[in-house]
Amino acid sequence: MNSVAEALQKVLENELPVRTETVPLMNSLNRILAEDIKADRDAPPFHRVTMDGIAIHSTQLLKKALFPIEGIQAAGDAQGRLLDPENCLEVMTGAILPENTNCVIPYEQVKIIDNVANLLHSDFTENQNVHLKGTDAGKGDVLLKKGIFIQAGTIGVMATVGVSNVKVVKPPTITICSTGNELVDITDNPLPHQIRKSNVYMLQAALKSLGIEAQTLHIDDDKKLLKAALEKLLHKNDILLFSGAVSKGKYDFLPEVLEDLGVKKLVHGVAQKPGKPFLFGRRKNTFVFGFPGNPASTLICFHLYFKAWLLTHLGKQRNSLFATLTEDVSFKRPVTYHLLVKVVAEKEKILAVPVSNSGSGDLVHLAAADGFISLPAHLETFQTGTSYPLTFLTQPWFN
Amino acid sequence: MNSVAEALQKVLENELPVRTETVPLMNSLNRILAEDIKADRDAPPFHRVTMDGIAIHSTQLLKKALFPIEGIQAAGDAQGRLLDPENCLEVMTGAILPENTNCVIPYEQVKIIDNVANLLHSDFTENQNVHLKGTDAGKGDVLLKKGIFIQAGTIGVMATVGVSNVKVVKPPTITICSTGNELVDITDNPLPHQIRKSNVYMLQAALKSLGIEAQTLHIDDDKKLLKAALEKLLHKNDILLFSGAVSKGKYDFLPEVLEDLGVKKLVHGVAQKPGKPFLFGRRKNTFVFGFPGNPASTLICFHLYFKAWLLTHLGKQRNSLFATLTEDVSFKRPVTYHLLVKVVAEKEKILAVPVSNSGSGDLVHLAAADGFISLPAHLETFQTGTSYPLTFLTQPWFN
Repeated sequence: MNSVAEALQKVLENELPVRTETVPLMNSLNRILAEDIKADRDAPPFHRVTMDGIAIHSTQLLKKALFPIEGIQAAGDAQGRLLDPENCLEVMTGAILPENTNCVIPYEQVKIIDNVANLLHSDFTENQNVHLKGTDAGKGDVLLKKGIFIQAGTIGVMATVGVSNVKVVKPPTITICSTGNELVDITDNPLPHQIRKSNVYMLQAALKSLGIEAQTLHIDDDKKLLKAALEKLLHKNDILLFSGAVSKGKYDFLPEVLEDLGVKKLVHGVAQKPGKPFLFGRRKNTFVFGFPGNPASTLICFHLYFKAWLLTHLGKQRNSLFATLTEDVSFKRPVTYHLLVKVVAEKEKILAVPVSNSGSGDLVHLAAADGFISLPAHLETFQTGTSYPLTFLTQPWFN
Repeated sequence: MNSVAEALQKVLENELPVRTETVPLMNSLNRILAEDIKADRDAPPFHRVTMDGIAIHSTQLLKKALFPIEGIQAAGDAQGRLLDPENCLEVMTGAILPENTNCVIPYEQVKIIDNVANLLHSDFTENQNVHLKGTDAGKGDVLLKKGIFIQAGTIGVMATVGVSNVKVVKPPTITICSTGNELVDITDNPLPHQIRKSNVYMLQAALKSLGIEAQTLHIDDDKKLLKAALEKLLHKNDILLFSGAVSKGKYDFLPEVLEDLGVKKLVHGVAQKPGKPFLFGRRKNTFVFGFPGNPASTLICFHLYFKAWLLTHLGKQRNSLFATLTEDVSFKRPVTYHLLVKVVAEKEKILAVPVSNSGSGDLVHLAAADGFISLPAHLETFQTGTSYPLTFLTQPWFN
């Protein structure tokens, strides 16, 4: 059986071909940028005043403290000019620095009487409170690199350089399949031995958090039906996510049917709890992730293998965080144990507070967890204060 | 002038009235739950088999190792019954436990020959591999509390209990206003002294990340126009966000106009850099946030004051994280300095790597930052290895 690290390695080494599309700027939020964004002019495009106050020429600073005001240079006005170097111009934040000036003195440090600015001190230097043309970037410089995750600040940069449509990575086409004859719809009233579908909705939500709208499909536990459905699905999708039908049950037809249809099984079985029967395979450029049917196994495997793989191939750098246990725990089996935890920030420490649960089928406790820590297979006791790799199941929310 | 802590306190103590709405389950993702969700039946609803294998009665374990197979209990079948206590039934994960059995032995630990299961050992106990009815929750128990942030696992729980429509907090109505005559539209070709609007799009994106669709409006630097626009906006919105026009410039009419219109200014000016002219006021239940016009000030104040306030009143618990400096930095002024940083997870440490920048007007470096650390006003040097409060500007993305 694969260790967690081996399984992850086998998944990650399969490349997901990336397609792109062009979308309006505001729709690009939380997407992956698929082109370099260059400066269409210098940044800033002109010597930009950064404080409200007066503009003078710095050579005058040693000579005098009183500067008659010639006029105002407002933001949005074409560049004005200081006519007499012994005078000053009032200037506003965002304005272009007037010709014949090179230093801005904020209002807080002058006293204006009868249209004459009186400097309260002379401790100013050339270019003070001026954001010089081109200091952030020159025209043609790459401001944003292909592959970054588009966030609010990135949107701001693109707006500045006039990008109203942007090339981004197109999300892969995904269908989430549920199996299991015990499942009924949300709106149904289940019989005593039935339960409502939940994993497909959970996975659909998890994908939506990644900006991906996925289809869902329920397939009954019937080998022929499964095979017919799967043949179609393999043609129509980049990725299939299965919840259930991957274990050793009499009706767990998925592994066999996948093999019949030419899907190469690359991982089936991982020395982990929960999630032991996890399956990963591919047929050409279609990838199949088979998550064990209980909710915690499904969501844990989704994040640990699928999300890690997807983000890696979409260009997102992995950022591994460890969290510190707040109580002793122990597990007997020689497998990696994924322990559900609440994540609490305590100054510089990320604490992992175990969520009590009665087993891997427990959706109620799963929903109470922020993530899980992966306790290594070679140890049996894990002490308060020791740290282990943390994977978030939710969107981490710190201030 | 207010310290950062004082300003935040003054903002936070103003309560945002919360409205609710009912939305389809899948649309509730990333929203705040506005009702308690209760179990419609026990969880699990029946004694649920958690492994594929055979079900026996545990009293037989000391007597015998060979169990003839009577039949199969599949998931989704109505509850069957073991007729002869000396026999067994094959059972599948997710099935209801058959009558007259109380212990499930996984296939891995039996050998089946000629329809007889041979136990490889007898080290099993009552209820093993059975998820007992009601152990996670009883019918009527509150499974999800009002106020939680709806994520994938939460969606799963709601699906399980048949919640196809859910009551959530209704996002407040927000208009983002830009001011500044130097600003032109994204699609315009700016003159040498003009720049394109970027802050409104940046703020719109930041709100979208919080699940809020906001309107935008540009108002020219004209007192009359501003007053007329503002009077309408105050009536139509819960919250107004302004970028610019809050400082000491000749055309920074916002503070004056707000006062004319009866908006009580509660904060104006904070001992921080960037973001010194930050303004916060209210008129009845309409709240006005005036962010200084440069991009970094705007985005920093958005997260530090607005987002903290909004999430607090929507019911989200604040989770303060500190990050550790990777290089020495120093600042001379007696103000809180918000230093833009890249956030890197290095095992249990969250590292803050300063992003070099030429000033608070620098959008390019802002886009390269993941967040900022707030360096306290009473110190001037901040050494490598020391930790300070971190605020994310982006969606933090760890594994």
